[in-house]
Amino acid sequence: MKSELKPNVVGIDIGGTNTVFGIVDANGNVLASNSIKTQAYPELEDYIEALGNGLLELISKNGGAEKINGIGVGAPNANYYTGNIEHAANLPWKGIVPFAKMLSDKVGLPVSLTNDANAAAIGEMKYGAARGMRDFIMITLGTGVGSGVVANGQLIYGHDGNAGELGHVIVRRDGRPCGCGNKGCLETYTSATGVARTAKEFLLNRKEDSLLRKIDLDKITSKDVFDAAMAGDQIAKDIFAFTGQVLGEALADFVKFSSPEAFVLFGGLAKAGDLLFNPVKKAMDDNLMPVFKGKVKVLFSQMKDADAAVLGASALAWDI
Amino acid sequence: MKSELKPNVVGIDIGGTNTVFGIVDANGNVLASNSIKTQAYPELEDYIEALGNGLLELISKNGGAEKINGIGVGAPNANYYTGNIEHAANLPWKGIVPFAKMLSDKVGLPVSLTNDANAAAIGEMKYGAARGMRDFIMITLGTGVGSGVVANGQLIYGHDGNAGELGHVIVRRDGRPCGCGNKGCLETYTSATGVARTAKEFLLNRKEDSLLRKIDLDKITSKDVFDAAMAGDQIAKDIFAFTGQVLGEALADFVKFSSPEAFVLFGGLAKAGDLLFNPVKKAMDDNLMPVFKGKVKVLFSQMKDADAAVLGASALAWDI
Repeated sequence: MKSELKPNVVGIDIGGTNTVFGIVDANGNVLASNSIKTQAYPELEDYIEALGNGLLELISKNGGAEKINGIGVGAPNANYYTGNIEHAANLPWKGIVPFAKMLSDKVGLPVSLTNDANAAAIGEMKYGAARGMRDFIMITLGTGVGSGVVANGQLIYGHDGNAGELGHVIVRRDGRPCGCGNKGCLETYTSATGVARTAKEFLLNRKEDSLLRKIDLDKITSKDVFDAAMAGDQIAKDIFAFTGQVLGEALADFVKFSSPEAFVLFGGLAKAGDLLFNPVKKAMDDNLMPVFKGKVKVLFSQMKDADAAVLGASALAWDI
Repeated sequence: MKSELKPNVVGIDIGGTNTVFGIVDANGNVLASNSIKTQAYPELEDYIEALGNGLLELISKNGGAEKINGIGVGAPNANYYTGNIEHAANLPWKGIVPFAKMLSDKVGLPVSLTNDANAAAIGEMKYGAARGMRDFIMITLGTGVGSGVVANGQLIYGHDGNAGELGHVIVRRDGRPCGCGNKGCLETYTSATGVARTAKEFLLNRKEDSLLRKIDLDKITSKDVFDAAMAGDQIAKDIFAFTGQVLGEALADFVKFSSPEAFVLFGGLAKAGDLLFNPVKKAMDDNLMPVFKGKVKVLFSQMKDADAAVLGASALAWDI
């Protein structure tokens, strides 16, 4: 049997650049937080030592370990079942890292981890746009495209912990090459880098003037495209229309899988608002059968950017 | 609290032509069965009366109602949450039919229902190829393509009971028109009718001789294509290779959703064995990232055809 729930949890978000950690209460308030530079620790043991000491200090200043229910970690390529981080391309430590065990040994608290998009989904269910929902799909639109699938009120981890790789569903047969080795993956079109690729393609293939032509073709970012679209630039608006169309078509196929109540979009690209929302919603409904059409919500995350990753990770630690 | 489990259950499979019902024990033995003609009862009330009386007779001859834990029903367009059959194109009763309530009122036993592919998935988990699995996907390859998705040991019904419509995932953008109103759905390629459509296309577009040219182009069935392929006919073999390729590509995308341990293929087309299995497995693995490649099993149903539908439906009634 589980012991009684303690009042707070710790959330840790491990990114390629920074590792942010904080103490969170049951209402989703971040009571205190701190960070270390992930890249400053090429040796895993040094990183665990620094992170563990930072955590212990933060915890002791905020009521001590007896107030902490557990530690939740969101990290790229993190496996919920094994507690390992496996072959994460953007982290300094190679191979399979027994992360949960090492951190738990260091700080003396239970540690649960999952990948960043799953952590975001759990956070959204506990504190954000998906409160009260038992069936929804989180789509993170950042440098890549990640996903967390919730069905029957539970995150779907799959038989091996690797479920929810919707960024690599193939949306254009023989389409754009993807880092995963395949072609035409969703994330080659609807990530921030996908938008930059579309911009380059459109600017090369079209003749009209555009605000984007002032920028070096290889340096255009999704932010540049957003700014140009907001200034009324037609090519920039068309880039978002295309991105939204591809994403909406993909969401329609995801509906046929788990019939979610909603999609929750999160990440830099989700800030495009109606520029993205309108074509996404239209393309999704155009590609659904009558039984689904018009019924599935497309929502934007309600989590504050600065807190979202830590909050999402921390939510894991309520059920540890 | 639930009362004690009784030793047997009833399974009912409602098809457009026949309704088959049987009493099943905990080991998956069909102890007794019978059937009525679905189409003989254009009025729903008459159908419920005939089915109910048939059931009551079968039950009284086999130990009485006190031995029956409940009744599970598999039917097209059946909604697990509401107990309704909703707008089923191939059944005589139109609109939304409160089937579970009507049958339960008639026979005095609890009734649970779901669509045929979900029933097949539950049957496979309880008695068939998916015993012991907590994450797998059932794909039924019949006149259409149906699916039942099991994750975390539970069938995924979605927020409205309509999950698992993988036959309508779009595999070829602007591809073949589908009865659902969209284009390029999986079932337009990998159902028995999809195979017949491919046969027509290949025979029209190619010049070689083929055993299939002896048959009227509009009357070729998937069985004809299978027989020709087994006799060494190249076009027929190519039709299965193409069908398997399309199915394998789709399965790869489904893996990225729920990372299942296995797919279980069921239905007329699944009898094609290696003709289908080899291209399916190759196309699936070709379209997976390294973390999944070579790890996902493709299995064929272990249920006897005659019993499968009734067994699958009956399995619902153990957890009623």
